[in-house]
Amino acid sequence: MKVAFQGERGAYSENAILAYYGRQVTTVPCETFELVFTTVQEGVCERGLVPIENSLAGSVHRNYDLLLKHQLSITGEYHLRVRHCLVGIPGATIPEIKQIISHPQALAQCEGFVHQLGATASPAYDTAGSLKIILEKADRSFAAIASRQAAELYQMEILAEGIEDDPANFTRFLTISTQPEIPTGIAKTSIVFTLKNIPGALYKALSVFALRDIDLTKIESRPLIGKPWEYLFYIDFAGSVAEKSVSRALENLSEYALTLRLLGSYPRHLLQNGSA
Amino acid sequence: MKVAFQGERGAYSENAILAYYGRQVTTVPCETFELVFTTVQEGVCERGLVPIENSLAGSVHRNYDLLLKHQLSITGEYHLRVRHCLVGIPGATIPEIKQIISHPQALAQCEGFVHQLGATASPAYDTAGSLKIILEKADRSFAAIASRQAAELYQMEILAEGIEDDPANFTRFLTISTQPEIPTGIAKTSIVFTLKNIPGALYKALSVFALRDIDLTKIESRPLIGKPWEYLFYIDFAGSVAEKSVSRALENLSEYALTLRLLGSYPRHLLQNGSA
Repeated sequence: MKVAFQGERGAYSENAILAYYGRQVTTVPCETFELVFTTVQEGVCERGLVPIENSLAGSVHRNYDLLLKHQLSITGEYHLRVRHCLVGIPGATIPEIKQIISHPQALAQCEGFVHQLGATASPAYDTAGSLKIILEKADRSFAAIASRQAAELYQMEILAEGIEDDPANFTRFLTISTQPEIPTGIAKTSIVFTLKNIPGALYKALSVFALRDIDLTKIESRPLIGKPWEYLFYIDFAGSVAEKSVSRALENLSEYALTLRLLGSYPRHLLQNGSA
Repeated sequence: MKVAFQGERGAYSENAILAYYGRQVTTVPCETFELVFTTVQEGVCERGLVPIENSLAGSVHRNYDLLLKHQLSITGEYHLRVRHCLVGIPGATIPEIKQIISHPQALAQCEGFVHQLGATASPAYDTAGSLKIILEKADRSFAAIASRQAAELYQMEILAEGIEDDPANFTRFLTISTQPEIPTGIAKTSIVFTLKNIPGALYKALSVFALRDIDLTKIESRPLIGKPWEYLFYIDFAGSVAEKSVSRALENLSEYALTLRLLGSYPRHLLQNGSA
């Protein structure tokens, strides 16, 4: 099976694919998130995997927008513990580092460490890609922030490990496919909907879950393009569409919602501390 | 009066300050959003102004997090129509442009234009700052995306104007101060709260507004640092804390919320089409 991800080889997304599907799948790097979606839509890859949320930085809004744009289904979720390394070119040492390059989210997650080092931070499109940038520079004062796997892949120097300011650093990934799947066991469901812009509209919408004791795990609002200050709502909740209470809640919601789309039901991935 | 903003001179935030407060105030550029908040907290500037949301790109989460971290009050809001220009060094022409530099949000908002041009996009920390980068490069194949005001300030070439993919492009800014103000006239109020992680918690919280016909204008969830997949909720709604129904709704909410903080009541800024 071929699974598409965004970024260079060694990206956290690639680590998540190998952890979720195992090492027998073929991972396919894509330059953009959009390409991950189209690669799956066109059947070039059977699955894609994209980050949707980080426990420190919040949601990856681009992927919420792409879920809406493409007619794909969410078939799984995976929580990856993100452990950042400071990586230099071979031979580099920490006191030499003056400039640190990485994805803005990785830089934000290591803000304290970067500040303590007195280094300047510069944004790059992805973590593994920032390793390639500093390899090309061949300057020992440049370092990047990326995963251990990426550093090992490019045979670079790991100067420090676990440099994130908060160790409760997880990224939630979603797997996407052209075909929906009906999960067995403990499940979660994701939907997206729009409401009339009137008082109490969201309250009514949430009543369909609350009055059935369905546990919401996430609510996210995104701007409706072309309608300033109106929103799309993305909700994740416990349960599968195969369960009667869930299918009834969605029928009920469709009475209030202007538009409603099921993004998918999938097996719930619990963190080791039991939450998720 | 001195008003702090993030970015270089010519930034959209500086345009918003001049539009909101008029040209008699002194604008004070700060390198980071964090510095805008501390500059106001320490009394160096009487006010700060920060972007909180864009109608295409969504919320500026960093500023939601900083509102929580600092004990400042929101005293005003302003909606700025964002009209991007493609800007080159003096003498440059459109067919020469191969590389475009700007803030990732500006690049995202002009994705169609950049793609049509066949140029490569590279991220920078801010729009006005990207002008300085290309001035230093002194290479006619580099362009930046910034406002007309910024291009004029740095005496650069405006190659195209209004290059954003969607013209309904507004950024909402908030003004912050050490002292809360009680607005007269049509007002809005912003709060932040946390809830028990149990089914129906958000539904109960929203009931305090819905059952009093108080109109929510925005809901935003942000991760609780150190507690993966638990959230802070930021809500904006119509009305001022000086109104009885609002103060009662907040008293009622404090019965359900684990924590609740009033961020401020302020005059509502209506867009010309009446929404906001």
